[in-house]
Amino acid sequence: MTTLDAAKAYLDAHYEDALEDLKAFCRIESVSTDPAYREGIRAAAGFVADRLTRAGFSRVAQLETGGHPAVYGEIISDPSKPTYLVYGHYDVQPPDPLDKWVTPPFEPSVRDDRLYARGVSDDKGPLLIPILVAEAFMRTGGKLPVNMKVLIEGEEEAGSPNFEATLDRYRDLLACDAVISADGAMWRPDRPSLTVASRGMVDFEIIVKGPSKDLHSGRHGGSAPNPITALVALLASLHGGDGRVTVDGFMDGTAAPDARILAAIEAANFDSASYYAEIGTAKPDPIDNGRELLLRQWLEPTLEFNGISGGYQGEGSKTIIPSTASVKITCRLVAGQKPDHVAEVVKRHLEQRLPPGISLEFHRQGPGSEAFFVNPDLPLLATAEDVLGELLGQKPLRVAMGATVPIGSAIRKILDREAIFFSFSTSDEDYHAPNEFLRLKNFRLGLSAWAQLLERLGR
Amino acid sequence: MTTLDAAKAYLDAHYEDALEDLKAFCRIESVSTDPAYREGIRAAAGFVADRLTRAGFSRVAQLETGGHPAVYGEIISDPSKPTYLVYGHYDVQPPDPLDKWVTPPFEPSVRDDRLYARGVSDDKGPLLIPILVAEAFMRTGGKLPVNMKVLIEGEEEAGSPNFEATLDRYRDLLACDAVISADGAMWRPDRPSLTVASRGMVDFEIIVKGPSKDLHSGRHGGSAPNPITALVALLASLHGGDGRVTVDGFMDGTAAPDARILAAIEAANFDSASYYAEIGTAKPDPIDNGRELLLRQWLEPTLEFNGISGGYQGEGSKTIIPSTASVKITCRLVAGQKPDHVAEVVKRHLEQRLPPGISLEFHRQGPGSEAFFVNPDLPLLATAEDVLGELLGQKPLRVAMGATVPIGSAIRKILDREAIFFSFSTSDEDYHAPNEFLRLKNFRLGLSAWAQLLERLGR
Repeated sequence: MTTLDAAKAYLDAHYEDALEDLKAFCRIESVSTDPAYREGIRAAAGFVADRLTRAGFSRVAQLETGGHPAVYGEIISDPSKPTYLVYGHYDVQPPDPLDKWVTPPFEPSVRDDRLYARGVSDDKGPLLIPILVAEAFMRTGGKLPVNMKVLIEGEEEAGSPNFEATLDRYRDLLACDAVISADGAMWRPDRPSLTVASRGMVDFEIIVKGPSKDLHSGRHGGSAPNPITALVALLASLHGGDGRVTVDGFMDGTAAPDARILAAIEAANFDSASYYAEIGTAKPDPIDNGRELLLRQWLEPTLEFNGISGGYQGEGSKTIIPSTASVKITCRLVAGQKPDHVAEVVKRHLEQRLPPGISLEFHRQGPGSEAFFVNPDLPLLATAEDVLGELLGQKPLRVAMGATVPIGSAIRKILDREAIFFSFSTSDEDYHAPNEFLRLKNFRLGLSAWAQLLERLGR
Repeated sequence: MTTLDAAKAYLDAHYEDALEDLKAFCRIESVSTDPAYREGIRAAAGFVADRLTRAGFSRVAQLETGGHPAVYGEIISDPSKPTYLVYGHYDVQPPDPLDKWVTPPFEPSVRDDRLYARGVSDDKGPLLIPILVAEAFMRTGGKLPVNMKVLIEGEEEAGSPNFEATLDRYRDLLACDAVISADGAMWRPDRPSLTVASRGMVDFEIIVKGPSKDLHSGRHGGSAPNPITALVALLASLHGGDGRVTVDGFMDGTAAPDARILAAIEAANFDSASYYAEIGTAKPDPIDNGRELLLRQWLEPTLEFNGISGGYQGEGSKTIIPSTASVKITCRLVAGQKPDHVAEVVKRHLEQRLPPGISLEFHRQGPGSEAFFVNPDLPLLATAEDVLGELLGQKPLRVAMGATVPIGSAIRKILDREAIFFSFSTSDEDYHAPNEFLRLKNFRLGLSAWAQLLERLGR
């Protein structure tokens, strides 16, 4: 029996334990963006550290980041072999709206070979896979085919505000030949793919202020400035009729889209009608076909309103002119766009249009991150492609993603290393929405694929 | 000692009891627009009924309205004298935002000769005054100078959706010579006034719907329609740069403003700078002076956003494209505008601009009400003016109000009677906002004024 076969047999034999581990992990309420979940963050970091230790990792530690801790562990089986740093994150999105969940977000539930729980797909399931695979190699052969370091952060859903500083601070500890991200997501359930590009992000909250207190909208209507009126006019000025952002300077630094991704879009022959059926809306006017849709989703920047709030939101009515109104915005960035510059031009755009009687506060939520492209000639990428191709009988498509995995550019910048995404979540698994799930079929596929990848990398 | 003097002496002697009554009334959480306060509504109706009985009213009853009950009572001292129907409402606005209150909204607190509590100014204090005055006449002389009927409703803050039907149903019981509203509010604390016109109102909630569930704004940004983006564009299209409503047909039926109100505006010589200092904002562009300000507040219609809501509103960020977004709107109407028509043209305006992929629900909150003008030649109005002039040493100004007191037009329509506003709240008392208060000086003034008014009407 080969080392690989032994590890795979171990994984098969312990699959039910692995599933219980994942459920236990998903019971922890590790929401990173809301201070109310501080205890869940602490518990999740502890869970990861404990799980690494049990799997046979050494030097397991919670690293100080200035924010939520990152968890580190390593298995150095043979210093002459290459060392891969595995990335993941133990934090999750907020679970609301709670009433839309079929089963509670932190009570994992299996239905139809899917595990439903907040964070199961993004990123608790995918990050647990390489740890379980390392454990399988250690329990069966006592060593890994390559050296593995693991870095699991706790602030990805908050935009990884301390990630670059953490890489810098622990530069020596994290020294490696390349990085394999367990976060990232496959593109479609029916089409094997490897993600080679992701959009960057910058996010901020804008608060507009009018009267110093809520006013009676009968008495003051017509004379007092209404901050909601001001806010909707400001926000409506940010997009044109084609859905694109109209802010001066927003596109600064961008160039023509990458030809390889354009080729992938042509090859994908994407069905826009089934996309809109899936998300439950009609097609917006500017999007004529699947090609236009993927262009916009993968290769164009966005400015999305994630939340808006102001005045009375309870049952029935309350006749007020509110004192304030606010909006949460995230921009997704393409190659060439800088988060600071984009935030600055949006702020300037709004300030220039601010009506008298209304003031504006502009709060950045974190440093943001630039878009990222995997080096197309990276041998690690080819190996990952081969492994997936062998397992699935079809060469995976190299695709982009609209979402942001800020670690790629941070790793290149600070560690001077390349990273690939090797994730077994799928982008339709409702992460960031109610009823997030992970296909257990892909959890099992991931266990095999990571085992084969490590074996191939160790040859 | 005259009957009037005896009643006034009684009121003086029992002032502390009156204040305790008012506090007890204000402790009841009678919010009409939110079903969570059902118990408070029940308790407040019971309080009014009990207080009427104790004051000497007969035929006290809670009238079925189809919604929250209205409370009725009467004192028929001499069938040959005229009968006045006194109007008020025991329901109050929602108390939020709770964290802005210096003392809790339902724990009445006296500071600087002001009583702070939700509803104390609108309308619990003002409506309690005529009941206390009737009690004083009954306890001292055993009868009133005129006949008095009292109708205290519980749905004014919800737009009095059942008021017309209630007048119709109890038409015989409510038969009277004229109506005196204890609700309405004086214009300024430094200028005696009688309100002779009020704007009408129509209110509705609009819900825009996009994707069938919240989506990841990274994955779907650029391809999925965002309901907040649609909503802000729709709402921004409702007002022009001059702050006026741009909806086709919105002004249908309106005529040139009433010349008497225009004259009052000129006479008021209103100071716009101190108005904006008071509400804590700079002056909006279109308003150059106090005259323009009062024109807009009293004689022009509005469309105000009272609340807006959509997507993630918690701490930090959540990168979603939400499934829905909504806004609560009230329009204030001037003479000639019909609530149904205004709602219809706004709905049509929005539906015509609805982008593909977005649907819209339009929910009326009640029937609304038309603007109201008191008949300027009404003897009751002249009597009220005389009483206030005597007490304050200055003839009161006949003013309009931006707010809505829908009962005036309903009474004219159903009972074929005229109504005046004789209220001792002041329009700066933060009703509909945190820290609502009533000037106790005006509570005492109201007790004297109602006593004198009843006495004069009985001559």
